Amino acid sequence: MKDGVNRQILLVEKPTGKLAPQHFKMTESAIPEPRDGEALLRVRYISLDAANRAWMHGATYRAAVEANTVMAGGGIAEVVSSRAPGLAPGDLVFGDTGWQDYAAVPARHLTKLPKVEPMTHLLSVYGIAGLTAYFGLLDVGKAKAGETVVVSAAAGSVGSIVGQIAGIKGCRVVGIAGGKDKCGWLTSELGFDAAVDYKDGAVFKALKAAAPDGVDVYFDNVGGDILEACLAQMNNHGRIACCGAISQYDGVPSAAGPRGVPGLIVVKRLTMQGFIVMDYMERRNEALRDLQSWVGSGKLKVQEDVIEGLQNTPQALIGLLAGENRGKRMVKV
Amino acid sequence: MKDGVNRQILLVEKPTGKLAPQHFKMTESAIPEPRDGEALLRVRYISLDAANRAWMHGATYRAAVEANTVMAGGGIAEVVSSRAPGLAPGDLVFGDTGWQDYAAVPARHLTKLPKVEPMTHLLSVYGIAGLTAYFGLLDVGKAKAGETVVVSAAAGSVGSIVGQIAGIKGCRVVGIAGGKDKCGWLTSELGFDAAVDYKDGAVFKALKAAAPDGVDVYFDNVGGDILEACLAQMNNHGRIACCGAISQYDGVPSAAGPRGVPGLIVVKRLTMQGFIVMDYMERRNEALRDLQSWVGSGKLKVQEDVIEGLQNTPQALIGLLAGENRGKRMVKV
Repeated sequence: MKDGVNRQILLVEKPTGKLAPQHFKMTESAIPEPRDGEALLRVRYISLDAANRAWMHGATYRAAVEANTVMAGGGIAEVVSSRAPGLAPGDLVFGDTGWQDYAAVPARHLTKLPKVEPMTHLLSVYGIAGLTAYFGLLDVGKAKAGETVVVSAAAGSVGSIVGQIAGIKGCRVVGIAGGKDKCGWLTSELGFDAAVDYKDGAVFKALKAAAPDGVDVYFDNVGGDILEACLAQMNNHGRIACCGAISQYDGVPSAAGPRGVPGLIVVKRLTMQGFIVMDYMERRNEALRDLQSWVGSGKLKVQEDVIEGLQNTPQALIGLLAGENRGKRMVKV
Repeated sequence: MKDGVNRQILLVEKPTGKLAPQHFKMTESAIPEPRDGEALLRVRYISLDAANRAWMHGATYRAAVEANTVMAGGGIAEVVSSRAPGLAPGDLVFGDTGWQDYAAVPARHLTKLPKVEPMTHLLSVYGIAGLTAYFGLLDVGKAKAGETVVVSAAAGSVGSIVGQIAGIKGCRVVGIAGGKDKCGWLTSELGFDAAVDYKDGAVFKALKAAAPDGVDVYFDNVGGDILEACLAQMNNHGRIACCGAISQYDGVPSAAGPRGVPGLIVVKRLTMQGFIVMDYMERRNEALRDLQSWVGSGKLKVQEDVIEGLQNTPQALIGLLAGENRGKRMVKV
């Protein structure tokens, strides 16, 4: 990094099909001056999330990202200087820093973080991923001991934690992931009871074999065909926690939803519930207590996939959308 | 009716497309003898429900109806003779009597009914229709004063009650129905705030105009395109009570579900929940108390559509599926 320079990655064009390197460009600008109420941040780790791609489609739970602006993204950063009460140089914060070395951000949009070793856990198990898994599985999905839980994108940042928490809670756990390696890792390393390789065709059949008593909770990260296959396997009074729809993000949104909606929802009295982890922030400490205890006792393994260098952030997201990561992917700036 | 003869309507062929008169045949057989634990019933009113058609597709929350058997259907009947404790000649019961004059039914499948005037209210407002509307709107949909409630098949047996209860609870009520006459009836007679005629094209636009603040609760009786249009209008944290999918019953089940599943469910944190009124039978008296008080005070109008003659039951169902009824349709045997 050059002194006094702020490297920034811009989204130069909104993709209509698949996301590609040419949709981004790196530029340099001056390090910004914080205004009243803002802190100047030095970005340390940028979080890569499938939702980053969804933001390009239009407004969601946040404004759309627009062409020719710094690409949005959450990250861990260190306060360099502050014009906001309650923030001092050296403090660690989480916020939407964007893909750049430095950002001036209003303090009200920042969450102060404790010092944790390794710091990266603040983006994985103690960050959005861990909290999403925790509240999605237990509060939305209402998973109970003895039930069968299925999670898709099971080798990803959220899915890998969902499956392990379900195991800790005494559920039978089935992960759906792409490829033999990931599936083997889920069962041998993370303690999943079974794994279904969606790249191996016939998800429906494989799922039926892996969940012979049907599915009580489906934690859906992907939508599309896999949601359709799971709907068919749900037990009466089953719950589907709708966390994301990765299969729909990178390309043209599909023209139709899954079969079985609403027919199977009625007949089986299913509940499909969408959620956003931000709605649970008041109950954050409740989750962190449990997560810390499970990590501390070795019951919950934390898998991180750290890529070095701001310049590699676009490729890191493109690769994440193609499913090349295991666990929480982030970029060390 | 001839003495000693039991007229029965058989489903002679399961329809693959639209239901038509030739799928049924009337026959005559002997009046059955009740076995131990059964009661012999004289059927008085047969309930017509869109679900009757759905049962022909296969097993749902009940076994499928099969070709060359008496067509299944709920009804009010009088006990003629009984070989079951707790049931005596003259008692009134509700059960799956099928489309026939007489039925021998195990007592454990029958619900004893109070004497009510008119008796038909036991199939409409105090029967499945009223209970479905009550629990679907208040327990599943969690409608609260000040919210906007939309109901489809609004002029039907359930929809017409849903909208009126929502009004009683202080909600803004929008009904979706087919045709100007029905829509006019909803607003002028039943007190709906607005009505959308789905036969008039552009449901999406009309719905937006009728629910300018968005939709908090959508009570879905139809599925398909109308569910898709409502999904797009839902407010954050909105609830969709999935009661039925009439649009999908009479013909080949559609190859895809509504767009926006699960994308909009996630982003807007929606809950879609299916339910079957049978799951609420323990709480039946709670609903009946409210319904009786509203009917008694004139706040809730009961609309019934009674067709005379067992022989007209097939056409009554075919017509119901085409949307020709207002309120609860039944056949007086």
